[in-house]
Amino acid sequence: MAHHNVEPINLHDRASSVTGHWQPQHIHNINDTHSMKLATIQGEFFWHSHPNTDELFYCVSGGPFSIEINRTARTPREAEQLGCDHVAQLRVGDVFCVARGVQHRPVAPLETGIMMIEKIGTVNIGDREGDERTVYVEEK
Amino acid sequence: MAHHNVEPINLHDRASSVTGHWQPQHIHNINDTHSMKLATIQGEFFWHSHPNTDELFYCVSGGPFSIEINRTARTPREAEQLGCDHVAQLRVGDVFCVARGVQHRPVAPLETGIMMIEKIGTVNIGDREGDERTVYVEEK
Repeated sequence: MAHHNVEPINLHDRASSVTGHWQPQHIHNINDTHSMKLATIQGEFFWHSHPNTDELFYCVSGGPFSIEINRTARTPREAEQLGCDHVAQLRVGDVFCVARGVQHRPVAPLETGIMMIEKIGTVNIGDREGDERTVYVEEK
Repeated sequence: MAHHNVEPINLHDRASSVTGHWQPQHIHNINDTHSMKLATIQGEFFWHSHPNTDELFYCVSGGPFSIEINRTARTPREAEQLGCDHVAQLRVGDVFCVARGVQHRPVAPLETGIMMIEKIGTVNIGDREGDERTVYVEEK
């Protein structure tokens, strides 16, 4: 059985206490297969996809922010060249799910607290192998 | 691939538009295994557990509300007799995960909007077989 916290975790409080952007923190595992993470973001992330997992985003605080999507690009490089063919704009309380394999990048003009749910073991850079901005998160 | 909404869904707006309590609505599937649902609740639910899935709760609006837990009871009837051995109090923004198999019941003195994540196919009444308060939610 997964480790479970005895007391609730407040996502707003956690988001406001985070220093540094694009550094996911682990919140909870669900059923030993999925992981809930929290991050604060500001600025433009880079194009990537997660070939093996959907990635559900929830806007906790701040924002709004955008998730740029390219549904036809097969690699980060293609997405960079083609740009987005869809933009989801998320304000506080909004949920949006990026399907597995879909190239995307979050863009946050203002500091934003986001919660993400994806499979355990998912790395922030997705299919950008060896990128120096990789953050490994302990998920237990 | 699961069906995915093209535009974000706002949990606050959905919670405020729901009429009726304890009637989960489907929001999203994640990876064809997990389901995000939303409900508004008020009053006391009944003791139950979900033998095959963790159940993650998030307090969207209203509240606070409690999740009463009994970690030793093996059936709803035992939990009713024993009462709770732990109470998690959730205010807006709080996340709390009830491990699979653990008897629990939400208690909401005030109307509260809650989001839940659990395996697809999970029924609200858990191991209370044949309870008339069963709600079947279409998850696609």
